[in-house]
Amino acid sequence: MPSASPLSRRPAWRALVAHREALGEVHLKTLFAEQPGRHRAFTRSAAGLTLDLAKQRWSPETRELLLALAREAGVPRAIGRLLDGERVNISEDRPALHTALRLPASASLVVEGEDLVPAVHHTLARMEAMVTKLHAGQWRGATGKPIRDVVNLGVGGSDLGPLMVTHALADFRAEGSQALEVHFASTMDGSQLADYLGRLNPETTLFVLSSKSFTTIDTLSNARTARDWLLARLAGERVGMPAALVMRQHFIGVSASPEKMHDWGIDDAHQLEFWEWVGGRYSLWGAIGLPIALVVGMDHFRELLAGAHAMDRHFREAELADNLPVLLALAGIWNVNFLDIRAHSILPYDGRLEYFAAYLEQLEMESNGKSVTHDGHQLDYATCPVLWGQLGPNAQHAFYQLLHQGTQAVVCDFIAPLRRYDEVADAATRAHLKEQHRLTLANCFAQSRVLMLGDEALADGDAQPSHKRYRGNQPSTTLLLERLTPATLGALIALYEHKVYVQAVIWDINPFDQWGVELGKRIAGETERILAGRRGQEAMDDSSRGLIEAFWAAEAEAP
Amino acid sequence: MPSASPLSRRPAWRALVAHREALGEVHLKTLFAEQPGRHRAFTRSAAGLTLDLAKQRWSPETRELLLALAREAGVPRAIGRLLDGERVNISEDRPALHTALRLPASASLVVEGEDLVPAVHHTLARMEAMVTKLHAGQWRGATGKPIRDVVNLGVGGSDLGPLMVTHALADFRAEGSQALEVHFASTMDGSQLADYLGRLNPETTLFVLSSKSFTTIDTLSNARTARDWLLARLAGERVGMPAALVMRQHFIGVSASPEKMHDWGIDDAHQLEFWEWVGGRYSLWGAIGLPIALVVGMDHFRELLAGAHAMDRHFREAELADNLPVLLALAGIWNVNFLDIRAHSILPYDGRLEYFAAYLEQLEMESNGKSVTHDGHQLDYATCPVLWGQLGPNAQHAFYQLLHQGTQAVVCDFIAPLRRYDEVADAATRAHLKEQHRLTLANCFAQSRVLMLGDEALADGDAQPSHKRYRGNQPSTTLLLERLTPATLGALIALYEHKVYVQAVIWDINPFDQWGVELGKRIAGETERILAGRRGQEAMDDSSRGLIEAFWAAEAEAP
Repeated sequence: MPSASPLSRRPAWRALVAHREALGEVHLKTLFAEQPGRHRAFTRSAAGLTLDLAKQRWSPETRELLLALAREAGVPRAIGRLLDGERVNISEDRPALHTALRLPASASLVVEGEDLVPAVHHTLARMEAMVTKLHAGQWRGATGKPIRDVVNLGVGGSDLGPLMVTHALADFRAEGSQALEVHFASTMDGSQLADYLGRLNPETTLFVLSSKSFTTIDTLSNARTARDWLLARLAGERVGMPAALVMRQHFIGVSASPEKMHDWGIDDAHQLEFWEWVGGRYSLWGAIGLPIALVVGMDHFRELLAGAHAMDRHFREAELADNLPVLLALAGIWNVNFLDIRAHSILPYDGRLEYFAAYLEQLEMESNGKSVTHDGHQLDYATCPVLWGQLGPNAQHAFYQLLHQGTQAVVCDFIAPLRRYDEVADAATRAHLKEQHRLTLANCFAQSRVLMLGDEALADGDAQPSHKRYRGNQPSTTLLLERLTPATLGALIALYEHKVYVQAVIWDINPFDQWGVELGKRIAGETERILAGRRGQEAMDDSSRGLIEAFWAAEAEAP
Repeated sequence: MPSASPLSRRPAWRALVAHREALGEVHLKTLFAEQPGRHRAFTRSAAGLTLDLAKQRWSPETRELLLALAREAGVPRAIGRLLDGERVNISEDRPALHTALRLPASASLVVEGEDLVPAVHHTLARMEAMVTKLHAGQWRGATGKPIRDVVNLGVGGSDLGPLMVTHALADFRAEGSQALEVHFASTMDGSQLADYLGRLNPETTLFVLSSKSFTTIDTLSNARTARDWLLARLAGERVGMPAALVMRQHFIGVSASPEKMHDWGIDDAHQLEFWEWVGGRYSLWGAIGLPIALVVGMDHFRELLAGAHAMDRHFREAELADNLPVLLALAGIWNVNFLDIRAHSILPYDGRLEYFAAYLEQLEMESNGKSVTHDGHQLDYATCPVLWGQLGPNAQHAFYQLLHQGTQAVVCDFIAPLRRYDEVADAATRAHLKEQHRLTLANCFAQSRVLMLGDEALADGDAQPSHKRYRGNQPSTTLLLERLTPATLGALIALYEHKVYVQAVIWDINPFDQWGVELGKRIAGETERILAGRRGQEAMDDSSRGLIEAFWAAEAEAP
């Protein structure tokens, strides 16, 4: 059980407050001047990743105090509790076992009397069978033609993970996947789906309906539209295929609720199950990852799992002082709670990581955007900052102005692969692309340097007018991947998952629930009934009433 | 000239400080209870947009004081100075005349002795000729085949605007545009471009090279790769077309520098020019908008301009108290400078606005992420907050948890069209999609309500455990479009452009320069030379040196 004493009364916390005061507004350039060998002192590697925390605005003493805080908060035991399957998700009284999804088949993890590994690998085997059949062109639509397009219907965790990874690993397409296109439709307003339905052939299109609860209205709305579209075109009078055949051959369901999948019409043979102990935003490692496997193949999918598992082992085994997720978490605690930094920018220098920031926005903000402790007390300290990001080189032309010359402190994570384009066959093209990669790395390294040093990055200290001055002192992390592969991507995601967990342990919050989204769903349902029923708005606040009436007025004008 | 007295010494500012103290931590629900008719009192409409600011955490008195601040800061005169073409961009000593790009042909705007309107419409006519030729299949590649794919090479302002608008207006495709696909490649690492080059046919592919300065290394790197790809395939020994013909038929250049375009090899006949007085992030209204016109056609493109112009006229003519950009700006000033809100989320409830948040990230943060006044003094108040966003319904499943139950205040802009899907021909499909639209609006209205009221949004005030409590009191703006059309989209973008300007006037900063990105470019160049030349790292800080050496080590291992 987490201690009942609030975080801010812990000895290490109070020592950090005093230390923060003593450090004052020390500039990063001073910290570098005072500590030769700072890069090596603050850099650690594991699972194909190298984490350089030297450009954080801290000293070795800061790190020692933060490590003491982690120990006082029980981080070492909490790591074991997570990985061993204890019920760390207290408000929902269950474990959070996404790490079980990436255990090798040879492992065993007995949780509350049951070994979970065989079930996990059974699901992987079922995914593999589906992938093989689809790649071989042997999965046929109701009219007998091989499936050519797969549309993933899901939102949140059932969308962001598969979308991000599929995009990141586009260079790792499986042989046999070439004839298959994988698409993603998530928005409840039907925009994306309507576009696909206008372009795709119902005879050769398969929908993967992904929803942990199988009650997500966004996904079910899209799914109903898709079902009607299929049935009208394939089971209608003109083509006349049996509706049950259309449903069986054109839908796969992925959910923790087989009953609801069955009731909706998903054929029992085409259901992939996952477990209540896997959170939606931690679910890409299992059946929710089917779209990933369809693009990169099961071998690469298993490499992704193996990379994440390597990080899990590092997380469990490495000393706190060498533990990448722990160190990354502590840098965040320092920035949020002691430097009052409320914004965190995620800046990958690799176009394949285009959706990585959006993925982390969910992972971090949905997990740690909380303000009560495990035992229900209101916090008196800040938790998750606002996270946002963009491909680094593009963001240089968009919002780096604010990072360099704005009025608020922001911490940045720079992420880049060291090697790239080795596999390009044509020598001239390879040389050219490798130059583009080197240029990209040069930009990555230069930006963290300028953020840190400001003007002093210039060898010649020309006096500049003030609108050309840079004060520097913006902290950042640099995270290097040997190469971007399924394995290092798996490790990268797992690194952030565990960082989030360590922060939650220290903040004494539950990162695995999301009660903050429930009320909105309920009120949206009520509002929908008012909009549809054209009455009931009187009880609402004046603004909401005004907006509802504006909708009715617009509807009345419709042709 | 802006007054030399700093903002924080203005009487209205001091009155606002006192007012803020008097208001205390007043809850939005109290403000609503105290003011019947609050929706109407805080709602204004113009140019097809309705702006509801009732859910901002302010009172009518706050607004009066903010309007006084705007008057004291000279906003009314500043509006005239912008639109009349005075040199409002002081650090670069030039006007900022994006509004001139959307003046009707019948207008006249004499700036420093020259009427700009004929030149603007001359460029539009040249764009139209290109669009017509491409739509008709009469623009042929070097081997005589009609162009089928257009790839826009640009980054920042030469990418985000065209990308965002093209996506937003996908329902407004021009007749004749069907045979043409428009793509965007922006990232300097070559990821996107490499993907296109693997898929596209060089004989039928045209590149639009967009760069205001024509020195943007990201874009020129991609352009070089594209040029080599074309020449190797079309001018090489096998096909043997003349290189000059390949260059002429496969490249359009858009820049403020005809000389540089010429030197790079863009045929004089295929150059589109724009002007130094148009900032990159304000440039979609002219030749940089070519990809937009290629998708939606010139008629819709002119409607986009007309919608923006309608907002320009409203901005000039409406009283401050009814002026949408002014009111939106003042709400921002209140949130940033008096409520200490440092994060601003942009949440469109319409899948077509997928890139709108990314667009605004540049517009706002690059414009107002500044910390010195016009005359070079360091500010003692905050300016631009961190902006980020996502499609609202998707963000509900990603980061709304933090909005509802996190520890920091965030202001949200909810954006939605009132009417949609009227044009869908099939009655059953139309009814279905209209339901999805109504559901989406219900979610939009419900979320701002829950953010405002917290638990009190529930009719039955059940006692809840604390992890299910919502404190509410998060302010938001709701912005309704009658429908999402070229005209209302134009007005929407112009609204935010002018909001940014009004805030800059009050903060006494220059929103039209971006000196904060120059140093990074310079240091990136130096770093690239070190990486390539394998020496020079000794002079750098220890972390940057370590990163550079890690790259060299990785290179040495490469096959």
